[in-house]
Parts: sequence; C-alpha cells; structure tokens
Amino acid sequence: MKVSGKNYRTVWFEGNKVKMINQLLLPHKFEIVSYKNHKEVAEAIKTMVVRGAPAIGATGAFGVALATLEANKSNFKKYIAEASQTLRSTRPTAQNLFHAIDYVLDSIKGLNNIEAIRKKAIKTANEFADADVESCKKIGQYGNTLIKDGFKIETHCNAGWLATVDWGTALSPIYVAHREGKKIFVYVDETRPRSQGMSLTAWELSQENVPHKIIPDNAGAYYMSKGIDMMIVGADRIAANGDAANKIGTLEKAIAAKYFNIPFYVAAPFTTIDFKCPDGAHIPIEQRSEDEVLYVQGLHENGKIMKVRVAPAKSGALNPAFDVTPANLITAIVTERGIIKPNKLKGYNK
Amino acid sequence: MKVSGKNYRTVWFEGNKVKMINQLLLPHKFEIVSYKNHKEVAEAIKTMVVRGAPAIGATGAFGVALATLEANKSNFKKYIAEASQTLRSTRPTAQNLFHAIDYVLDSIKGLNNIEAIRKKAIKTANEFADADVESCKKIGQYGNTLIKDGFKIETHCNAGWLATVDWGTALSPIYVAHREGKKIFVYVDETRPRSQGMSLTAWELSQENVPHKIIPDNAGAYYMSKGIDMMIVGADRIAANGDAANKIGTLEKAIAAKYFNIPFYVAAPFTTIDFKCPDGAHIPIEQRSEDEVLYVQGLHENGKIMKVRVAPAKSGALNPAFDVTPANLITAIVTERGIIKPNKLKGYNK
Repeated sequence: MKVSGKNYRTVWFEGNKVKMINQLLLPHKFEIVSYKNHKEVAEAIKTMVVRGAPAIGATGAFGVALATLEANKSNFKKYIAEASQTLRSTRPTAQNLFHAIDYVLDSIKGLNNIEAIRKKAIKTANEFADADVESCKKIGQYGNTLIKDGFKIETHCNAGWLATVDWGTALSPIYVAHREGKKIFVYVDETRPRSQGMSLTAWELSQENVPHKIIPDNAGAYYMSKGIDMMIVGADRIAANGDAANKIGTLEKAIAAKYFNIPFYVAAPFTTIDFKCPDGAHIPIEQRSEDEVLYVQGLHENGKIMKVRVAPAKSGALNPAFDVTPANLITAIVTERGIIKPNKLKGYNK
Repeated sequence: MKVSGKNYRTVWFEGNKVKMINQLLLPHKFEIVSYKNHKEVAEAIKTMVVRGAPAIGATGAFGVALATLEANKSNFKKYIAEASQTLRSTRPTAQNLFHAIDYVLDSIKGLNNIEAIRKKAIKTANEFADADVESCKKIGQYGNTLIKDGFKIETHCNAGWLATVDWGTALSPIYVAHREGKKIFVYVDETRPRSQGMSLTAWELSQENVPHKIIPDNAGAYYMSKGIDMMIVGADRIAANGDAANKIGTLEKAIAAKYFNIPFYVAAPFTTIDFKCPDGAHIPIEQRSEDEVLYVQGLHENGKIMKVRVAPAKSGALNPAFDVTPANLITAIVTERGIIKPNKLKGYNK
C-alpha cells in the first residue's frame, strides 16, 4: 500500500537482502531496514521490527532463502537446517512462520546443485509472499461486498497491510471500498496497551487518505450507540466451531456490537482456522509483560521517541494479549475463499 | 484517607489558606499546595489541580470563605459577589460547585458584622466539607453490604476519595470492606484517555494497601468472563429515570457486565440525581480536546513528568468525555440514603 504516495510491501527480497519496514519506529519515523543474513532476520522477528502472523511468515520464508546464500558447499545442508531452527525459535507459537519455513524447505528438498537451490529458495519465498498478497486482496474483495457507500466502520487493533505482506485482512475490504470510491469513515480503536490501532492502523489509513479518527477503546459503545454500520477485526486463531481469538478487547467490542445489533465480522486468511482446535476454550491466552500497560512510548516534542510511566510506582498490571470471541457473536468470517458463517466452517475443511 | 500512612483530605481550610493535594502531579509526586486568595483557588479548579464534583464543590465553598478574608469594609459585599462569580465560572457545568458557593453565601446573608461574616463563612464551608465526608462514608457503609468476603470487584475511572473530600463514592464501599477485614481484590480499569484509573484509583488503593491490579480497558470483558463478582462506578449525573452519565467507557462495561450476569452498581451522592432531567437522552455529552487521546503524560526515567505523542502526525481523534448507561443495565444506585433500584428513584424525590 502507499507510504507518502509510493507503493510498499511490509517485507521483500531485493539485491540478496531481506528488506522490511521498521515497525518499531512507526508511526513516528518511516525507515526501511536491510538484513544480509538470517540471524539478523531472526532478531528482527524476535524484536518485532516486523509483526503480524502473515508478515512474519513471509519474513521467515525470506530468511531461509537468505540462509541458502550464506551457506557454503562444505556444510550446506546442516547450515540450512540450523538457520531454519533459529528462525523457527523466534516466535514459538507462530503457526504461519513454521508453515512458511517448511514451505521453502520442502521446495528445495530434491535439489542438489547449490546454485539451483538458492535460485529455487528465493523463487519459492517470493511466491509465498505473493500468495499472501493475493489472498489478502481476495479477502478485501469479498469483504468489500459487505460495505455500502456511506458506511461508518469500526476496527480494533491493526489487521492492516503492515501485519501482512500487503493489503491486510480486516483493513483490506476498507482499502478496496475506498479505492472503488465508496465514501466510508473508519473509527480506529486505539487498542491499548500496545496501541496498534492508534499507531499503525491510523498511520496506514492516513497514508491511503481513508477518512478516519482514532477513538479511545472506551468510546466504542458510545459511537455504536450513535450509529456504526459494521465492525471488522482480524484474528490470530479461529477454532473449528468459529470461536475467534484476537487482540484483547475484541470480545468486549463483539458484545457491544451484539447489544446494538451491529454486524461484527472477522477477516482472516483461511490458514488462521485451526481445525484441530475444537473451540475457544482450547486456545491458551498469553499473559504479556505488565510494563506494556504501565509504560507508554511516544514521540517527545524534542523529536526523540521516549517511554514514560503512567502508573503509580507501587501498582502492578495484568496484560492478557488476546481474548476469545464466541462464534455466536460473530456475524461472519471473511476469508480468501469467501464469506463464511462461523458455524459453517467445518464444511470448508478440505 | 491514607497517604504514606498519614490521613489526608483532598482539600481543607487551614491557617487562613485553602490547602489541597495537587492532583496534576499524581501518581508521580505527592504535593500539598496552599492558596491565600480566591483567585488562586479559582485557577486551581480551572486547571484541575482538584477534580471530581464533590471535591470541586468543597473547594468552591472554601474559596468563598477565603474571599471574606480578602474583602475589606469599603467594598465588602461587591467583592464577595465578584469572587463568587469568579469561582462559579471556573467549571460552567458543575452543579455541586454552584450549590456549594450558594450554600456559603446563604449562610452569611443576614449578617452585617464583617468578623461575624468571616467566622460564619469559614464555619459553613467546613460544615459543607464535613457533610460531604459524612455522606461518602454512608455510601461506603451501604455499599459494603453488597460486598462479600473474597469478592473480585472491577471499577472504572476514579470515583475515589480524591474526587470527593474523603472516602470517595465507588471506592468508599471498597475501603469500608477492606478496613473490616474482608479479603477483596480490585481490577482497576486504566480508563483512557485521561487514565484516572491507572493514575489515581491505583494510587489510592496502593496507599490504603487494598490488593489490586491495573487492567487495560480492553481487558474488562476478559476478566468478567473469568469471574468478577461485581462492578461499581461513580456517576457525574443521574437522570430521573435512573439513566447515569459517567466517564466514557462505563456504558461498554455495563453492557459486558449484563452479558456475563455481573451486578453493576453506580455509587453517588443523592445530589447527583437531577430530577429535572427526565432521561439520559437529555444529558449533553462534552467533547474534549483530541490531544488527551493523541498524547500521553507520564514519568520519564530521568525523573521528569513528560508528554509524548502516540498517534501519527496526520491522524486526529474523537474524545467524548462521558457516556450514558441506561437504567436497565444498572443493578442499583448506592447513595447516602440507601441502595435504590434505578426505576425507584422518583419515590425518593423529596
């Protein structure tokens, strides 16, 4: 999508390097970082220079491709195996990452010529990234059919193009609708504690000139009561029964949307559906560091990115990263295969 | 209540000065400020050194008392009238403030001896503050009957002693229960955008050693799903039909509490009920500066209180200060006159 009028992807392979947008500096600074070996790429995943399951997946694929360039003849296979393990261990629960790494490894399994392997690994990693773009674009096209001209749309967290290779999931329908000329307005939940809505979604929308305003998470129900036409969010994992785990606060929005009879959509690539997971009760909820709640990072007027503590010195915080929205609060799930009722997912498991 | 083990009120009259806790520096610095004339007191109300309707009311009463000390014989009545107007104009919608100022003015109406007036004004202002303490304490005693040993209680914003002269409204039952030895645990909504939960409620509770944790507003429904026994909040204005205006986000919590069958209480002095206001639709919602959302203030590790911008440069925000919770989502209203069902308020209007 556009940044200052120019098209970018979140991560890409160029001149034997993995390049990506440094998301740690957004929305205050736009910076492209280049990595020349897989260890740097692993570190970038670990420190969240890149985030969002699909974007991390593509980064992992490019990391393996990079490793084939680093490895030399004497220890080629061992080097690739170790590099893959390093990349894999950066985010221990990231299904997309494992899938992406295996996808590239599988493609080079039968090959023995080193140059052929390198060429193939780069080609496969690029195909993997392109496939993500294609599936996100399809989510956008399907989701766009739900958006009418004049719609007011609320979204939570960042399920935008920065979380994927391009287009995004929950934001993809918004981009498609906007480019088609539909007049839409987006209420962006700031999404505490990490504020990905305020810092990433609002930034994406401002770069694409989509009309929007940031709202405190607390203002969601208030604006729903005044008239929101639909809410659309992403998902980290969807159980076989249609229960969906997503950023903390999603559950509360879904309950409020139900109360005000506002359609509530989850947009996600089909791979987000975990058919081995029967329902939401089987999805473990990660507790993250309390410091994410107690401290806030932002841009000081002196131009420096600084961290300040908002909480009293003696108080602690609880910081669950996700919650689970039950299927009966979800109007439909928008995937690259179409718009699916949550209780009909099983029919698509093939 | 206690600060570092010593008892304080939010605002008091001492040595011909109005003294108060500087709430702009909390929770990072505890500082008492002294004002020697009513103009300084008016400025303190305006800049929110003191906040919370009951605390502002008492401050206004003390401000009038101070003005009687400043005024000299030649222009005594005119001076008091002008001073009252200055104090009144600091917060144009603060019913409690107007009421408090009139209360002191009425008490000195029949008097002509300047020394007698001064003595009476100070006495009346002190009585006004004492009456607030008494009514908050009663709210605590009534509310305490709703709290069982072992209860997990969620609260939103700061309806604590810092918002009143002492004890608070929503937090008063929590203090009474805690001092009685009930084992309770408080989930403190951080309450964006001004974060009064994180910065004031958590600070109050930590000073009183009440077990608590701060949670992002987004985590409310998640912890409700895991088992919260009751939610209690304050109110800025309650309509005759029981609809209650309170800090933005209260509506969303009330909807979530209903969804999980958690009792939802509003605690407020009886004067908060506006019998002239038929229902919530007649309560205007103030839109505050978007900067309260876009910027966050906190303590930097260098020891300075600093402000940082979290939002992208080109994105704006919406910042409604309050929302209205419909009466049918409120289990009961806890006042100094007892615990009242929201649809039974009218019977108490005498």
